[in-house]
Amino acid sequence: MTSRHLTIALDIMGGDHGPLVTLPASLRAIRQYPHLTLLLCGDESVILPQLESLTDAERQRVEIIHTEQSVGMDELPTSALRNKKHSSMRRMLELVEQGQADACVSAGNTGALLAMSYYVLKTLPGIDRPALISSLPTASHKKVYLLDLGANVNCDSQTLFQYAVMGAVQAEQVSGITAPRVALLNVGEEQIKGNDVVKATAHLLSETPGINYIGYVEGNDIFTDAADVVVTDGFVGNIALKSCEGLGKLVINEVKRVSEQNIFTRIMAKIALPLLRKIYSRVNPDQYNGASLIGLRGIVVKSHGNAKSDAFLYAIREAMQEVERQVPTKIKDKIEAVLMERP
Amino acid sequence: MTSRHLTIALDIMGGDHGPLVTLPASLRAIRQYPHLTLLLCGDESVILPQLESLTDAERQRVEIIHTEQSVGMDELPTSALRNKKHSSMRRMLELVEQGQADACVSAGNTGALLAMSYYVLKTLPGIDRPALISSLPTASHKKVYLLDLGANVNCDSQTLFQYAVMGAVQAEQVSGITAPRVALLNVGEEQIKGNDVVKATAHLLSETPGINYIGYVEGNDIFTDAADVVVTDGFVGNIALKSCEGLGKLVINEVKRVSEQNIFTRIMAKIALPLLRKIYSRVNPDQYNGASLIGLRGIVVKSHGNAKSDAFLYAIREAMQEVERQVPTKIKDKIEAVLMERP
Repeated sequence: MTSRHLTIALDIMGGDHGPLVTLPASLRAIRQYPHLTLLLCGDESVILPQLESLTDAERQRVEIIHTEQSVGMDELPTSALRNKKHSSMRRMLELVEQGQADACVSAGNTGALLAMSYYVLKTLPGIDRPALISSLPTASHKKVYLLDLGANVNCDSQTLFQYAVMGAVQAEQVSGITAPRVALLNVGEEQIKGNDVVKATAHLLSETPGINYIGYVEGNDIFTDAADVVVTDGFVGNIALKSCEGLGKLVINEVKRVSEQNIFTRIMAKIALPLLRKIYSRVNPDQYNGASLIGLRGIVVKSHGNAKSDAFLYAIREAMQEVERQVPTKIKDKIEAVLMERP
Repeated sequence: MTSRHLTIALDIMGGDHGPLVTLPASLRAIRQYPHLTLLLCGDESVILPQLESLTDAERQRVEIIHTEQSVGMDELPTSALRNKKHSSMRRMLELVEQGQADACVSAGNTGALLAMSYYVLKTLPGIDRPALISSLPTASHKKVYLLDLGANVNCDSQTLFQYAVMGAVQAEQVSGITAPRVALLNVGEEQIKGNDVVKATAHLLSETPGINYIGYVEGNDIFTDAADVVVTDGFVGNIALKSCEGLGKLVINEVKRVSEQNIFTRIMAKIALPLLRKIYSRVNPDQYNGASLIGLRGIVVKSHGNAKSDAFLYAIREAMQEVERQVPTKIKDKIEAVLMERP
């Protein structure tokens, strides 16, 4: 990373563990990155005592933005939008909107974060809806970007087309993949397969020279390096990943059950369980590295609600990376370019 | 099972291995079930020599229905429908349609089987589209029925409603679950979540007293006994299961890779791999026990294309069970009843 000074706003109160996780991660980030300033949004009386361990120089790169409210993890997005105007989540987004922060990170309520981000930051020109994107592991230890993971459950072909463009930019800028291979998630690889929306999107993409569109992939291909970016609507993306998560839990339960049989099965479980947990946690998108909300006029990274300090630190780094690569500007430029190119 | 005489037609030529798998399974079924007659549709010159090991009494319960054509595993459904009128798959379906067989089983091309079944058998009154249904394992070693697994990728709320009714009948009749709990697959459990089609279906189901509708479940709940029947459209159902399959392969690859490290990791892999393969094969719906095509005026069971003899035998048993429980009649009665009940 370069050393241009960056300012990131954090929702200190968000997540299942709130300041217990977000504050230690913040301190680690401040110590690791001398070019980073953090704006800590949350209850000053909770935050202030935790900053004592910082040196004077470090302390100068931390600012507390005191807020009285916080958004509950189970709060309805509509309620959060209406009643939590003074919350740490809302304040963090406003700092980005006002240009006081380059990006923001929250481990809070995903639905509320989506609604508030959309409301406060607005979408980029040419983009109708933001999307939730994350990278997943593949069999050859590469990354594949999957979007949308649940921001939008009713997508038309224009929205999916925009998602394809945004996903390509994210893969190119954040992972450095040149001309990323973009695929649409479908029930078969043949052209005639799929529902009407997917077919219409395929038509749009195949007419767009600026996108390296490679066609359809099936659910099992997500993890096989068949594509760098896999595009689907938020309904399918969410259910696909949650199904994987559910089956993962079933597998872990079975391994535990079998482990009690004898010494060999105990050895098996001792080695297999951490391995399985590691893989499954990487598929749980926000547990691994934070999913990003893209398509907005600002950078918003979502860390897992149940994130530990490591994961929240990773999400801060993800936000820094997106600032340095100017992802929103690149998305804006790309969507303008492809719309111009289109016949 | 009772001992009323049953006649099942089989697509001997279908599947990746064709007669190599379907014939041994047929012979086993004939030996195991004295009340079973099999109509073997396929190339007589291939089938006939394999029947020599049967006793005279057994041989009397086997009839060869000679066909010249077979449907290719990669053949387009439209092509199969138009050009394969004399195929083993088509003949098998006609035998059911003409009342000469009580049910049929194929391991052939799923898309072609769907198209031909719909064309030859037609749907039951009150049912617009057939669905592909299968049972999956759950954490507490019970079964959950998931539909649609890919018969229909464009579903409206009426179709999903009919699927819910059909799924309930299947769970009740085939697995003996009284008043099965029916849920809609969604991105959240709250009433406000979901796309428009799911919300409209929820409304229809909540107004139908004859169905034990319990609300929404998420992808991870498929495997947790949260419901007995999980309803979704064929696009989502197919992608959810294929994603699980893809991740399963990734997990197995990782276990294999790690296994080479030392003696303990070798022990781990030796025990973990068969366990993982067993679980994943049960989630691959047709690999486990055959998926059923329901909603038709006849019983069609789909065995996995890559099925081994055990799996094909299991699919024959599934067909026998559906005949004995008169699943199509029960679906017809149930859909009539719920449509009458609806306000």
